[in-house]
Amino acid sequence: MMAFNKENLDSLLAEIEPLDLEIMEQAQHRLDNLTKPQGSLGRLETIARQVCGIQKAMSPNVDSKVILTFAGDHGVAAEGVSSVPQEVTQQMVYNFLRGGAGVNVLARHVGAQVRVVDVGVAVPVAGDGLISCKVKPGTDNLAVGPAMSVKEALEAIGVGVETAGQAIADGANILGTGEMGIANTTPAAALFSSLLDVSVEEITGRGTGIDDATLAHKIAVIRQGLEVNKNRINGPLETLACLGGLEIAAICGMVLECARSRKPVVVDGFISSAGALVAIQLVPEAAEYCFFSHMSAEQGHRLFFEKIGHRPLLDLDMRLGEGTGAALAMGIIEGGVKILNEMATFAEAGVSAE
Amino acid sequence: MMAFNKENLDSLLAEIEPLDLEIMEQAQHRLDNLTKPQGSLGRLETIARQVCGIQKAMSPNVDSKVILTFAGDHGVAAEGVSSVPQEVTQQMVYNFLRGGAGVNVLARHVGAQVRVVDVGVAVPVAGDGLISCKVKPGTDNLAVGPAMSVKEALEAIGVGVETAGQAIADGANILGTGEMGIANTTPAAALFSSLLDVSVEEITGRGTGIDDATLAHKIAVIRQGLEVNKNRINGPLETLACLGGLEIAAICGMVLECARSRKPVVVDGFISSAGALVAIQLVPEAAEYCFFSHMSAEQGHRLFFEKIGHRPLLDLDMRLGEGTGAALAMGIIEGGVKILNEMATFAEAGVSAE
Repeated sequence: MMAFNKENLDSLLAEIEPLDLEIMEQAQHRLDNLTKPQGSLGRLETIARQVCGIQKAMSPNVDSKVILTFAGDHGVAAEGVSSVPQEVTQQMVYNFLRGGAGVNVLARHVGAQVRVVDVGVAVPVAGDGLISCKVKPGTDNLAVGPAMSVKEALEAIGVGVETAGQAIADGANILGTGEMGIANTTPAAALFSSLLDVSVEEITGRGTGIDDATLAHKIAVIRQGLEVNKNRINGPLETLACLGGLEIAAICGMVLECARSRKPVVVDGFISSAGALVAIQLVPEAAEYCFFSHMSAEQGHRLFFEKIGHRPLLDLDMRLGEGTGAALAMGIIEGGVKILNEMATFAEAGVSAE
Repeated sequence: MMAFNKENLDSLLAEIEPLDLEIMEQAQHRLDNLTKPQGSLGRLETIARQVCGIQKAMSPNVDSKVILTFAGDHGVAAEGVSSVPQEVTQQMVYNFLRGGAGVNVLARHVGAQVRVVDVGVAVPVAGDGLISCKVKPGTDNLAVGPAMSVKEALEAIGVGVETAGQAIADGANILGTGEMGIANTTPAAALFSSLLDVSVEEITGRGTGIDDATLAHKIAVIRQGLEVNKNRINGPLETLACLGGLEIAAICGMVLECARSRKPVVVDGFISSAGALVAIQLVPEAAEYCFFSHMSAEQGHRLFFEKIGHRPLLDLDMRLGEGTGAALAMGIIEGGVKILNEMATFAEAGVSAE
């Protein structure tokens, strides 16, 4: 894999275009002539219209689904911000490869393939099906300095660009984000706080389920990280490098590649939203290619949606990550697309229009 | 089909038992040992546990799905409470039979079969696949007297009992409710107002999309219906007869039969909730067998959920009925069941538990 650099990023950003409004208007016209009161399928209709605008197609297709689950470790885990030991990142990679994790089950349920990408697990991992693109064995500790150099952040973005591009080349017409990385609600919360200008207390939650004392410590660690890095933070890319994770950077790259390639990208939960947010701050049009799958039970996610003015598709108190929310939401999105493609019009069915 | 009477209803009610709490505790234990932080799959886990308690099984099955779409007409349509002509009820029955309606598309998407039942269409309808159980050709006008006699309401309940029982005999292990009947938000709103003791203004919405003047008229018509029938209304069965619809009564019967047969029943939208509410008021344990699929965009549905203390699975601004919400929710419920059945435990996967 060739190292991705600032020039590659700039040219990728320049290639991202807005949705096709003309196609979306034609899709709306068809939706309004289907055998139902206008607008009565609610968000299924807006989903279908958006996919038309993304794919520039009146009969879009989302039947070839790929979820990319990026795994990376975090130096900040050394601060004791998670109740789960770091070794669980690698253990879960093997669980993904064997098909036993939550994302595997829900992806099979909706007919999606899971591709597992090592972008920065702390120890060597290998196995059938693993895509090995380790940029480095975990980030540095954001509480004492930058988590990554800008060069490393760009390389991790490149991993997302390349693996998404490969999935699309293999036929994927809808992609979902996923991640695994013990302690990664800490960099995600730090990124949200900095990029959305919200307080650390408001955006920081309990992750896998930490107690009150650990939560207070986590907040202090994030505050310290913001303070330590403040002179380097200057724009989304530098913020990502200072506070982010390798898997979060890869998700940013994946969102950008989907936008360039005009494929819908289903953003999983709290961590994935941080990656998507960096992409959207780099190029606002990227948001039009995103479907936000669900409202995480992780505390700060609601604030994220308020700030960016989007509404997730599902709200099922989930907070697992991996791509589990993206998988479920893919089923809903496909339902919306099928409404457009398969329902009869008033004329076809001989039903009196209003 | 033998006419269903009060004695049949009483014996059915007596056979409905609570969920199996012991199995649910065992299911919770297994859920807590799957490779994820405890509770991190949120409502997918509570869904799985509930299905275990319903089916009395540690590995429940919801892979054989049937949606029953009951069609019936409404005498109150003569008052001009809907913007859609009554003939659309029968036209949509043919659309269902040809597979072109919203419910057909979404049922196919989740692998559910749609069975269309004529319980009270105003005109003769016939066609391949139609289940003909017409109790009478539409209800009487609830604004001037009872919509049905108690005997007719019981017969319509019996249609739901019998068709659900047949689907279960054919192998269905999860059922979804659906309906079609022009003007049927009017009887549904009347039932909610009476059974939940809420004001007609609060519970009454725009149905297929009526204007302000028609909405004011609809509210006045419902108020008149409540006044005209007040001396006959005495308990849920009599209220159903006075204010209900034949399809709403059938849904009530379907919910009761699913509870007796220990099968999960997915309640569609606003109209279906009225049928489920009658069932729950007849026997509170029936609620434990229900999954409420979605929050309808029809105004009063939010108030219904507040009153009964349940939370629907989806909130996608849908307001079509037919069983469309039930179909989508079946996909979510199956996802929850698969989590329980297919995910690896910490021990199986060699992942460190918390």
